[in-house]
Parts: sequence; C-alpha cells; structure tokens
Amino acid sequence: MTDFFNGIEAVKYEGPESDSELCFRHYDPDEIVMGKRMEDNLRFAVAYWHSFAWEGGDPFGGRTFDRPWFGSSMDMAKLKADVAFDMFKILGQPYFCFHDADMRPEGDSFAESTRNLEDMVDYIGTKMEGVDTKLLWGTANLFSHRRFMSGAATNPDPDVFAYSAATIKTCMDATLKLGGENYVLWGGREGYETLLNTDLKKERAQAGRMLQMVVDYKHKIGFKGAILIEPKPQEPTKHQYDYDVATVYGFLKDFGLENEVQMNIEQGHAILAGHSFEHELAMASALGIFGSIDMNRNDYQSGWDTDQFPNNVPETALAYYEVIKAGGFKSGGTNFDAKLRRQSLDPVDLIAGHVGAMDVCALGFKKAAAMFEDGKLEQERDARYAGWNEGEAKKMLEGGYSLEGIEEYVRKGDVNPEPRSGKQERLENLVNRYM
Amino acid sequence: MTDFFNGIEAVKYEGPESDSELCFRHYDPDEIVMGKRMEDNLRFAVAYWHSFAWEGGDPFGGRTFDRPWFGSSMDMAKLKADVAFDMFKILGQPYFCFHDADMRPEGDSFAESTRNLEDMVDYIGTKMEGVDTKLLWGTANLFSHRRFMSGAATNPDPDVFAYSAATIKTCMDATLKLGGENYVLWGGREGYETLLNTDLKKERAQAGRMLQMVVDYKHKIGFKGAILIEPKPQEPTKHQYDYDVATVYGFLKDFGLENEVQMNIEQGHAILAGHSFEHELAMASALGIFGSIDMNRNDYQSGWDTDQFPNNVPETALAYYEVIKAGGFKSGGTNFDAKLRRQSLDPVDLIAGHVGAMDVCALGFKKAAAMFEDGKLEQERDARYAGWNEGEAKKMLEGGYSLEGIEEYVRKGDVNPEPRSGKQERLENLVNRYM
Amino acid sequence: MTDFFNGIEAVKYEGPESDSELCFRHYDPDEIVMGKRMEDNLRFAVAYWHSFAWEGGDPFGGRTFDRPWFGSSMDMAKLKADVAFDMFKILGQPYFCFHDADMRPEGDSFAESTRNLEDMVDYIGTKMEGVDTKLLWGTANLFSHRRFMSGAATNPDPDVFAYSAATIKTCMDATLKLGGENYVLWGGREGYETLLNTDLKKERAQAGRMLQMVVDYKHKIGFKGAILIEPKPQEPTKHQYDYDVATVYGFLKDFGLENEVQMNIEQGHAILAGHSFEHELAMASALGIFGSIDMNRNDYQSGWDTDQFPNNVPETALAYYEVIKAGGFKSGGTNFDAKLRRQSLDPVDLIAGHVGAMDVCALGFKKAAAMFEDGKLEQERDARYAGWNEGEAKKMLEGGYSLEGIEEYVRKGDVNPEPRSGKQERLENLVNRYM
Amino acid sequence: MTDFFNGIEAVKYEGPESDSELCFRHYDPDEIVMGKRMEDNLRFAVAYWHSFAWEGGDPFGGRTFDRPWFGSSMDMAKLKADVAFDMFKILGQPYFCFHDADMRPEGDSFAESTRNLEDMVDYIGTKMEGVDTKLLWGTANLFSHRRFMSGAATNPDPDVFAYSAATIKTCMDATLKLGGENYVLWGGREGYETLLNTDLKKERAQAGRMLQMVVDYKHKIGFKGAILIEPKPQEPTKHQYDYDVATVYGFLKDFGLENEVQMNIEQGHAILAGHSFEHELAMASALGIFGSIDMNRNDYQSGWDTDQFPNNVPETALAYYEVIKAGGFKSGGTNFDAKLRRQSLDPVDLIAGHVGAMDVCALGFKKAAAMFEDGKLEQERDARYAGWNEGEAKKMLEGGYSLEGIEEYVRKGDVNPEPRSGKQERLENLVNRYM
Repeated sequence: MTDFFNGIEAVKYEGPESDSELCFRHYDPDEIVMGKRMEDNLRFAVAYWHSFAWEGGDPFGGRTFDRPWFGSSMDMAKLKADVAFDMFKILGQPYFCFHDADMRPEGDSFAESTRNLEDMVDYIGTKMEGVDTKLLWGTANLFSHRRFMSGAATNPDPDVFAYSAATIKTCMDATLKLGGENYVLWGGREGYETLLNTDLKKERAQAGRMLQMVVDYKHKIGFKGAILIEPKPQEPTKHQYDYDVATVYGFLKDFGLENEVQMNIEQGHAILAGHSFEHELAMASALGIFGSIDMNRNDYQSGWDTDQFPNNVPETALAYYEVIKAGGFKSGGTNFDAKLRRQSLDPVDLIAGHVGAMDVCALGFKKAAAMFEDGKLEQERDARYAGWNEGEAKKMLEGGYSLEGIEEYVRKGDVNPEPRSGKQERLENLVNRYM
Repeated sequence: MTDFFNGIEAVKYEGPESDSELCFRHYDPDEIVMGKRMEDNLRFAVAYWHSFAWEGGDPFGGRTFDRPWFGSSMDMAKLKADVAFDMFKILGQPYFCFHDADMRPEGDSFAESTRNLEDMVDYIGTKMEGVDTKLLWGTANLFSHRRFMSGAATNPDPDVFAYSAATIKTCMDATLKLGGENYVLWGGREGYETLLNTDLKKERAQAGRMLQMVVDYKHKIGFKGAILIEPKPQEPTKHQYDYDVATVYGFLKDFGLENEVQMNIEQGHAILAGHSFEHELAMASALGIFGSIDMNRNDYQSGWDTDQFPNNVPETALAYYEVIKAGGFKSGGTNFDAKLRRQSLDPVDLIAGHVGAMDVCALGFKKAAAMFEDGKLEQERDARYAGWNEGEAKKMLEGGYSLEGIEEYVRKGDVNPEPRSGKQERLENLVNRYM
Repeated sequence: MTDFFNGIEAVKYEGPESDSELCFRHYDPDEIVMGKRMEDNLRFAVAYWHSFAWEGGDPFGGRTFDRPWFGSSMDMAKLKADVAFDMFKILGQPYFCFHDADMRPEGDSFAESTRNLEDMVDYIGTKMEGVDTKLLWGTANLFSHRRFMSGAATNPDPDVFAYSAATIKTCMDATLKLGGENYVLWGGREGYETLLNTDLKKERAQAGRMLQMVVDYKHKIGFKGAILIEPKPQEPTKHQYDYDVATVYGFLKDFGLENEVQMNIEQGHAILAGHSFEHELAMASALGIFGSIDMNRNDYQSGWDTDQFPNNVPETALAYYEVIKAGGFKSGGTNFDAKLRRQSLDPVDLIAGHVGAMDVCALGFKKAAAMFEDGKLEQERDARYAGWNEGEAKKMLEGGYSLEGIEEYVRKGDVNPEPRSGKQERLENLVNRYM
Repeated sequence: MTDFFNGIEAVKYEGPESDSELCFRHYDPDEIVMGKRMEDNLRFAVAYWHSFAWEGGDPFGGRTFDRPWFGSSMDMAKLKADVAFDMFKILGQPYFCFHDADMRPEGDSFAESTRNLEDMVDYIGTKMEGVDTKLLWGTANLFSHRRFMSGAATNPDPDVFAYSAATIKTCMDATLKLGGENYVLWGGREGYETLLNTDLKKERAQAGRMLQMVVDYKHKIGFKGAILIEPKPQEPTKHQYDYDVATVYGFLKDFGLENEVQMNIEQGHAILAGHSFEHELAMASALGIFGSIDMNRNDYQSGWDTDQFPNNVPETALAYYEVIKAGGFKSGGTNFDAKLRRQSLDPVDLIAGHVGAMDVCALGFKKAAAMFEDGKLEQERDARYAGWNEGEAKKMLEGGYSLEGIEEYVRKGDVNPEPRSGKQERLENLVNRYM
C-alpha cells in the first residue's frame, strides 16, 4: 500500500451501535436480503474520476486538493491507480468505473493517448489480479478536452466525430479487456449552447449513427455487458439531447435500438431534469430499459450538478424500491458518482464520504426490501387498478371498442363515475412504517 | 352587440406612430409578408376559456371579475357566446378555440351535458354564419370536474376512461360540425400526484389506447384537420406524461402514431419544462411533428403556469423564426392561451391584452421573416456543418464506416481536430440587427 | 360528536411495532424528552383553513371534497366548528390556528362580518371550555376576498388599508378573547404583480405604518403573545415583500420593530425562497427573531406552495435541531400548515395526514434532541471557530484593529494560512448516526 | 498595439442601417440624451477578469481559449495589460474594472503578491496616461485561491480574515492610486456549503467588522468613491450571505452602515435570487442604496451564473428605466460582467461581444429615456396612489390613527372598497410603444 491513507484501517461492519467513526453500521456485505448477499444486491462502485482525478475546483476557484499524484505523467497515473486500489481495499469495494481520461495522461495524438490508455489498462489489469474489485463499467471522456467543446458525436466538424468514434472503440476495448460488465455513454457536450448555430436534425442523425456503430461493435467483439446511456438535461450545455429517460427512449425507438441500449440513471441528473430519482427509475422500468444507477445527491436548490454523496435514507429507500420492482440489478450496479465537497481536503474525507454513502444505501435497500416483501404497498396499488382486469374495461383497453362504442356504453349505463380517494397520505404513512 | 364592450370601437391598424390607446401599430391583417397576408401567416385565435370562462381566481383568492354571464344556465352560456363574438369582431380575430366546458353548462349526466353542448354548437354555428371568425380547434375539458381528479384516459377507474372517451367523441363531433381545423388533446390530469399509488406502465397503455381510438375516429368521420397533443411537464399534477415534445415523440413512436399526431406547443409549458419556446418548436420540426402554437408568456421566475400575454418582441421573433423554418402554419395557428391578470377587471383590459399581444406577434413575425428572407443566419449555420456534405464524412454519416474503420481513418490521418469558434456572440449580434 | 368521523376512534400512542393503521408510533404526548413532555416540546396545532375550509380546488379544477358544512351560513360555520373540535379530540391536538375567514361567513359589510366573527368566537369559546385544545394563534385573511386583490396594508387604495387595519383589530380582539398565544401576519398580497404599476417605497411605508399600529394595539390591549410575521417570497404575487427572514429583518430594523416582532417560519415558504427550512430557522435565531413554525413540506420540484404534510424524518430532525438550538418554542409551536391532496376525499384521510405528520415530527424531534444532548456536533462546530476566542483574533473581531494594523500583522507574521478540511461528509455521517 | 487584435479597426458609430459586422448601430458616445452625452449616461466598463483572465473552462472541461498571455509571470501580466488597453481603445471604452488577481501573478507570500500588484498598478497607471479609459472600480479576489475556500471575512480561521483584510487594504490603495471611482466587495465565498459546520451569527459578526474597517479606511485615505456591495444568493456557495439587495440592507442597518455603502447590482445575480433585475434596482433605489450595475444576462433556465452579454433590448430598457428613476449613475456605471461563451475562441468574438452589448444597452437606455421623458407611465403610477395624498388617508399614513381609530372610521363610513383595475396589460402595451 501507498502511504496516502496512512493510519486508516480497512472498514468493517460493526453494527448500528458502534462508536467508531469509520465503520459500517448498516452495510454488511454478507448479510442476506431477498435471498442474496447485500454486496450482490447493491453492487457498489467507486467512480475513478471524482475520487482520484477531480482537483477540487469550481467555477470560482481552482484546485483545493493536494494529491501526490496530480500531474500528467505515466508515473503519476500509476501512483493514482495504486492509491485507488488502496481505497477499494479499505472500503471492500466490489467495483469501480472509469473514463479513459481519468486513468491515462492525455497524449499529443490519438495514437499516443491510446498507447497510454493501453499501458494503464495493463497496469490496472495486473492490480485487479487477486483482488475482489471488478470493473462495473468503462466510458470515454468526450467532453473535457477542448476538441470536444462543440460536441463529440454531434460536433459540426466530422473530424471530431471520427476522433470520438475511434476513442469510444479504444474505451470499449479497454472495458472488455478489464472484464467490465457494462459500457456507458454520457453525452456531456452532445447538445447545444445556442440554437442559433445548431442544426438539431443533423446532430440527431449523427448521434444515431454513432450509437448504431457502438452497438454493432459490441456484438462484433462479443462484449456481453450492456450498453448504457446516461441522461442529463443540461450543464455544461444549455440543452443536452439525452434530456431524461423518456427523451432517450424516443431517440432509441427512432433508431431501432430500444432493445439494445439501457439506461444508467443518475439521481442528480433526474433532479436537474425536474424529476424525482424514483420517477426516472420507474419510467425506465415501465419502458423496459432500466440498467444501472449513478447514486449521488443533488442539492434541490442549486441549479447545477452538485454530485454529493447520498445521505437521506428515506430517499434512497424509495429509489431502491423501484430497482427491486424492476427486478434488481442484472449487469448494473450502484456507482457513486459523487465527489467530496472541495473543502474536504483530508484523505479520511474520501473514505468517510464513501462509508457514509454505503451505509445510507444499505439501510435504504433493506427498508425497501422489507416494504417489497411485505407487499402491502403493491396490494394497495393493484387494488386501485383492479377494475381493469375484466369485463368491458379489459375489452376497452385491449382494443375491442371504438369511441362510438364507448359513447353508447356510457349512455346506456348512464355512467357517471364518483371519484375515489387516492389515499396519498395513508400510503405515505404506510411507507414511513418501514423507514 | 351586447353592451359589455360599450364604447369600444373595432380596433384598426393605425401604424407605429399612432397615439390611440387601442389600435394596431404593427398588425395589419392585409399586409403581405413572405407572399401571404399577415392574417394568413399568423392565424390568430382567441381562447374561449381564459377570456370568457375564467373568473379571476387563484389558489389564494376567488373570483375578481364580475361578468354578467357568470352562472351555469343556457342563457348565461348564450350571453357569453354573444360577448365572445362581440370581441372577435372588435379585434377582427380570424379564429377562436374552445373546450366543451367553456361553452356549455355542465349537466347532471353525460346525456345532459352532451345535449347542452350540441345546443351551444348550434347557437354558435349560427353566430359564425356571415362573420369572418372560424374555429381553429376544439378540445374536451377532462380536468376541471372532480370526476377527472385522478386522470381521464389514465384514470385507475375504467368508467372515467369511458366517460372521457365518450366526451372526446362529442367534442370531435362538435369540432367537425363547426368547421374546426384541428382537434387538441391536453392531458392536464394525465399524470400523477404520487408514484406511490401509480402504475406508470398501465396508465401509459391506457393513454395509448385512447389516442389510437381518437385517430381511428378522426378517419372514420372524415375530419381533415390535425390531431394535436399539447405537452406540459407538470401542474396541476406532480408529473404530466406529455412532458415535452421529445417525450411525446417517444410515446407516439411506441404506439405507431408519429405520422398521425402533431404538437400544439405552448410557450409557458415549454418554459416550465426547462426549455426555451424555440427549442420545443425546433425539436418538433426536426421530428416532423410540428403543428400549432399556444402563444403566451410564462414568468421565468414563477414556477406555475402564468399564461400572460406575450410582450417581448425579440422572443416572439425567435419563436416565429422556427415556425417559418418549419414551413409556417398549415392547419395550425397562433392561439392566445393567455389570460388577464386577475387585477385587470375592466372590459377594456380584455381588448387591450389581445391588441398588445397581436402587435407583439405581428412585429416579431415580420422581424423573423426579414431574417429568414435575408438568409444570413442560415448561411452561417450551413457553413458550420459543411464538412459533412461530402467525402469520408458523408460516408460515415450514411453508415459506410464501423468504429474500427474510423479508428483506422483517425490513425492514418493523424486526425487531431482544432476547435473552431461557435460565434455565438456574433450570431446574437446578427439577430439583433433584425430586432 | 358529529357523525363526520364516524367509526374513527381517538388516536393513541401504540409504539413503533403496532399494526394499527391509525395510531401514533412515535408521538407519545407524555414522553419526557429534554426534561419536558413531548406535547410541550412540539406544541402541535391544526390549521383550521386547510383542514376545514379548503375545498380541494386547484387552478385547473374545482372542489373535490364534499363536506356537509360547505356553504356560507352561520349554521354551516358552527357545524364546521363542531367537526373541527371532533378532530382535535380524535388527534389529542393541543392547539389550533385560524383566520377570521375560516371561521365565519363573510358579511355584506365590515360590521356584519365582524358580528359573524364575534358570534363564532363566542361559539368556539364555549367549545374550548373543558377541552384541552387551545389557540396557538389567530390571524386575518387579507388576501382571499377580491377587495384585497391589490394588497391589504400595501394597497394603493387607502380605503383598503383602512378596511384591513380594522379587520386586523377585530382579529386581534378575537385572538385575545380566545386566549391565543400569538398573533400572525402573513402578507399574501403584500407585494406586486408588476413593477410597472407599483411604488415600492410608498407601499413599504404603508406596511411599516400598519405594523407599528399592530404593535401599539398589542400593548394597549395587554396581549401577551408574540406578533409574528410569516415570510414568503412569491405566490400568489410575483413578489411578496416579506420575502424571507433576512428581508423581514431589514424591514423591522427600518421601522425599529426588531424587538417587537418575531418570525413564523414555514418550510414550504423557505423552499420557495431558495433556502432550506433549517437555514431560515438558523437565520431567525441568529438575528434574535425566532418565534414559531408552520410545518409542512413543499415539493422541491413544484414551483408553487404545495403545503403537503411532512414525511421525511431526517428533514424534520434537522429543523427541530435548529429549534432546540434557538431554545425551543416559547409562545410558538408546530402548526401544520398542510393540506390533504385534493384526491384524498375521505374523512379518514384528514386524520391520517395529521397522524403521520405528528409521528414524523415527534421522531424527528427525538433524534434532534439526542443529537443536541450528545453534543458532538456542537463540539465540532465550536472547534472550527476556536481560533477566534483569544489573542489577536479576538481583538480583531472586537474592533481593536484597522486594515493597516492588520496588514502589518500579516506582513510581520508572514501569515499565509493553509486551508483546513470543512469535514462536511464526516459531519453528515455523524448526523446520520442519530437518524 | 500588440498583434492580438490584428486586422480589427476601432469600432465606430455607423447608425442602424450600416452593413458592417463590427460597428455601433445605436451607441454614439456623443449623442445627447436627457441632457448628457450617452457615454456619460452609460459609463460603460470592461471587466478585466472575464475578458482577459478567464480561460474558457467550465466544470466539465478545461481551457478552450489560447491566449498568448496565459501564464503567471510579470511579463505575461504586462502583455495582458497591453492587450486589454488595445481592446479599450478599439471599443472606445471609458472604463474598466479589475480584481487584484486579474492583473498580477500570485506570489508565494502576501508581500510578494502585493509587490506584484503594486508593480502592475504602476504599469497600468502609465498606460492610462493619455488615454480616455479610467477605472470604474477595483476589488479584491478573495475567492479563487484555496486559502479562501471557507470564506474570507467569514472564514472560521482568523488568519484568513487577517489575510483578507490586508488584501483589501492593498486593493483599496491600488484603486485610489489608479483614480478608481468606486470600490466593490463581492463575497463569493462569504456563505456556507453546509449549515452543519457553520455558525451564522459568528460569521455575520466577522463580516460586519470587516465592512466597518473598510469604511473607516476609505475615510482615512480620503477615497471619495463609493463602497459597493454586490449581492448574489448562492454559487459557488450553497448560501451566500449577501443574498439580495433587501438582505444586504438588513445587514447594513445592523451595523449602522446604510449611509456608507451602496449596491452594485448584477442582472445575473438578481435572476439567481428569484428577482427580476429591475426589481433589485427599484428596491435599492427605494432603500436609498443604489450605486452601480454589473450588466450581463443570465439564462433564465440555467441554475448557475451564465454571465452572458445582454442581448434583449426591452429588458435592458426596463433596467435603465429604474436607473434613470433613481437619478442615473453618480459614481457608478455599466460594467459588463459578461464573458464569451467558451466556444467563442476568436479575438473578434471578444470585440463582438462588447459591441453587441453596448448597442443593446444604448438602445435600451434611449427607449427608457423616451419613456421617462414622456412621463405617461409615471402619471399612471401616481394616479394609482393619488388617494394617499390628502385627508384621512394622509393622516393614517403619517401616524395620526390607531387601529381602533381606523375601525371607527370604517364603521362610520361603512367603508367597503371596490377593487380597481391594475391595468397591467394596458401598461405593458404602453411600455411597448417605446420599445
């Protein structure tokens, strides 16, 4: 181990009554819930970028962190990887996620950047041998370098499209090589700053073409994981094309890819789009495209991506309830796309952020599981729609009626429906019994 | 004429220098712009509900207006219609739009409500004879009555679905009979208050079935107008299914209706969804589903539907620029889905609100037309994407390349694209030359 | 008892493991926390308006509730009072709050409205004899009637100012007579719809004058309770003058009333102003003007006042932590300014909404108390500022230095401060140990 | 001149019909409006930071601009100053504004940073000789360096307070030496990230002490300009103490500084605080603390500080209308706190951004002046409040009545006020006649 986390022991499960500052109070990886180990239910992952590449800057100030690996040489990249694996071990983290740009120094050319990536993949591959941390997903950073300032797939310059395509290929290769279980696309600059210089239709066609090639390449190389799109409505762009789950669904349908691509849903992005996290999860589930989650927390009152660690158990419980209803994670998992506040300078803060978040998620999951297994909430929901299960109602829903036919039905029966209580407060109370 | 607007003359075009309080300074219906009369370019419509049915209430206070036709008898409904047609005449308004509930008193049964509607359709049909005001569109109010409190098509109670279907049929009949040029669906309660009692997938299937029946019925009765959906993200619901243009598009694709249904886009709803109005217009145009607009203005800083009359010319100009780029209105038009502030008690306020809005739209349209005809902005846009028009770029876009192929292209050419200015400020300056 | 709540028993404390739908799981009025009974810590109050006067309308639909007391006669007002006291008894509610307009029918004149109010005060006074429910506060509804559409104290029409002043007097009289412990002013229409017709300075002077008279009258009649202002940023107005705690403080300072008036802080209003609830509480405490709370919950993503019952325990815990730090309630209390969702039609919903909220508040309070008594969080906070407690730092803060003096100090000491971790994640984890 | 702006000529007034890309169409510095040259009415200033120090980064990507002066030596700082003065000349800009950190490289100590600042002040002082560009205001950057991450005056560490105080002194000295007409304080980090580690009351006391020392020092050195505070509600902090004009007013009152300090109001900050720009201007004017403006434009739908150049003439007109009503600028002016979009890479973009903004402001000002000189809007406003000018109303406002006295007045006169139209639409139409 490096000396970065000197003095910090591996974090253990000690139960809710423990007095230790750094322990799991609720997350016991081996606890069985809904028939599975908690580790297998939650499939936690550390985000390489926030934890190891982000320097603590914001739009009004620069780097606050002072990490020994900051710099852009291969040596620094390897030191960063060493510290990352130290942290995975301290946390007992089963997964991590990365962008190419998190892991390797930028080269002067595509060839050099790719070589750097390949070397780091080898280095990290070696580190992964004999440890329990696997790769949840890889992705390409197509938004930080200035060449991508006007988009990657949707750039007006075809050379940027080409550069992006080639980069995605190398990142898919890296993901495959490291045994990654998914490949993610977040279109941070796929959008626009001003409609005045933008051709929406053309850019949409470019994005469709890119995605088609990604899917083709996945099949070609025999990558078994899922291709995931991560929606976000805006920031850094004025408008991002992958606005939310419903928007991406329309896009997938348009290009015939709704059975090939799933969603990686982030809490903070859901909030910025005006949705609750559970809405986006439920919507993806209803549309059959739920895949994985980026767990974090957005300040409801800050209009930018705050990427905080989750800390509200009832909120995580409602989110995991939707995950459970969707059948739980298959290839997906719980990636902490969360970063320290920039005033949290100490190495221990990095550990504490993750420990707190893992506990909040574990407790939330257990409450959600109890609620799901108890079944009362679903009984209430089913009862509300029970009228549709037979008779004329069923026929209407299945297409056995026209508007005229229904009018006749209404007239004949003098249908004049009385509203029934939606019971929201009672259901909220019911939910709180599990919280 | 009734005496409601006593003392108010027909409003005339007097030009920008006029000192009259009530005149058109910019809207001359007969002025030819882009080869058409301004009246035919803009196709203005009055919204029956805001102008004649709304009483001035808000969540913290009741009726402020004091109109002689307030009440729920057929006589009052006819007086209301008389005043409405007085106003159409004063304004020289070519179109109006209505919900069933604006025009007819609610009956005690479906049959009675329908009879009331039919009687009012006859009455209004007679009033339309010999005047120049036509029906832009009709629609059913499936949100105000308490029976719709949990939705219409998406209600958990099949009887409400049936009642809604029957009501839509009668409203489509009424629209056809009055020569309406479109039929609109706004799903004000098609959404949810809490996910806890909601089955998203089931409700989506219900909505799809209803829309299919509407389209079938349109063809059956030979209605030649467009079926239009009006998106809105929330309010009164916590979440409305027809969130925005892109969301509705996914829904239409899912039910195979993307060639049957178009969008009626409202400025205020676009704002509430986190989009600019021109974004929603451009998106609908890119997706081939642009239909009509509800022109109004939402306070950017009030989180509810403020439905104000538009008053910012540069904003209306940018909106009409997108309308013009989309080919202008076919069956659609400019409906003022705008209401007086509740402190604007006087009859003259109703006229003034419309006159100001018509002028703002007319001036905006003329500026947009000048910008479009001049072509400079489109030249700039085209130049930005010119690289895609030939060679390898064209081939890439059309599917002639795979990721590996492109990687080879990048490596061989040592592609390392330099970013190019997006020129946003220069384009904004260019636009301001027309404003 | 009336038969409105037929079949609903008095709600009892049954503990967290109870299976009853309607019981307290966490609120035991007699439990001693921080040396006081929970009832005395929390001082719960029912809001007369939401529970008994609101009809379930919203901007897109009318009344959904069907209450036997809806109507505007004195008989209906008395029936409403009877049901209200039934509910207070079922809930064991120690307090209620009212506006004049909630309790009495509007008369045709000031005199008649006042007579109605006085009669209802007598009626309610009789009902209060021998029961345990007291009056937390009274207030005047100066926003619902159309006469107040342009404001009450800040109306451009002096007669509305006068009418408002007279009404406030009658409501203060009623509050005194019913033994009210506070008197509240919420300026729902004290603001503007458009700056174009508004004289900010004049309206501010009017508001100052009114408040001065209120304070004078309080002293004159020997009312011992607090005068409370309830801030809100907007809605129904575009801008409300009592925007938030800090804004009201400036207003109070301007009129020399900062020692005479305190704050009644509502969760939902804090959210609408862009603040967390705990921010507003902490700010009022720091400024020495904390008084009472309106407990509810605003949907973070709906831009209007949703007035939901609170249901997130960690959030209520953080709020009560600030209340406890401010010394707990003196004359103030926890008023549920919360209303049922309009789909919650059943009498039991009204009970359930309150029971759930009381439990959420009780549990939150107990967690806050534990955190406060444990003292760890305050130790962390104090340690962060410890440098100010002595030496040059203390002198600087107390005014013993000028800018030049400090410059010299910096130069001499070559002061070059290293930042220290803000420990946010660690503190959030610490807080979660009590949740 | 340097060769940065090679090929760009001094920008001239050419009138609205000009076809030049870079000319003033509306801003003629010598045009007389309201008795003054337009240059003297508007008092335009370039912001050194956005135009010369900002590198084009955002939270998701780094530097996009490629300026020859990027680096941190004194040579680079001088080259930057040379280019800045080139731009002032090209634009004919009468003023600029600066932070210390824009102009000088950061040193390793306070002493070295100060020396660098002093050297640059000398250098810039020399450049200012013989040119027409003056200093509108100076300020200290107390937010970018990591030492300020937890605040400057409100930092828990007294040494940071001291460092900040010393820095402010050096910046006030620099401002005085360069003939600056104001000194500005923007408390970018004076706020908090989490209440959990924050003592609001203590931090407020620290801020008060600092401001007192600033005012004392101003008088001591005979600085004749205004001390200006620039409010902003949040970002980068979760909460900034100087939230908005009304909040700062309360703070000033508390420390007895309301006659010593004025407001520098930024459009974008007003928007982020939930206010219109004109609201903040009108409020400052009503409170007697209006000083200067930071003119820019915030995207209404992006929740962060977008700092765009203004481009909507009706909006700038309404803002200048409030400036004119407040008596126009005294020591203040129109500082363009606006930055290029990060895709606007070309030198000409920098010029174009300012030229467009200056034209938009000039046209807005002229429209506002016409509206003000015409007087119709103010007549309407005065008429609305005319009832207060005499009789009992006047007496009420001046304190001649108590609540009981007014009640008697209401009863005697059977006062029952009828609401009067607020005329919003008519006033909006009136305003549009000048637009």
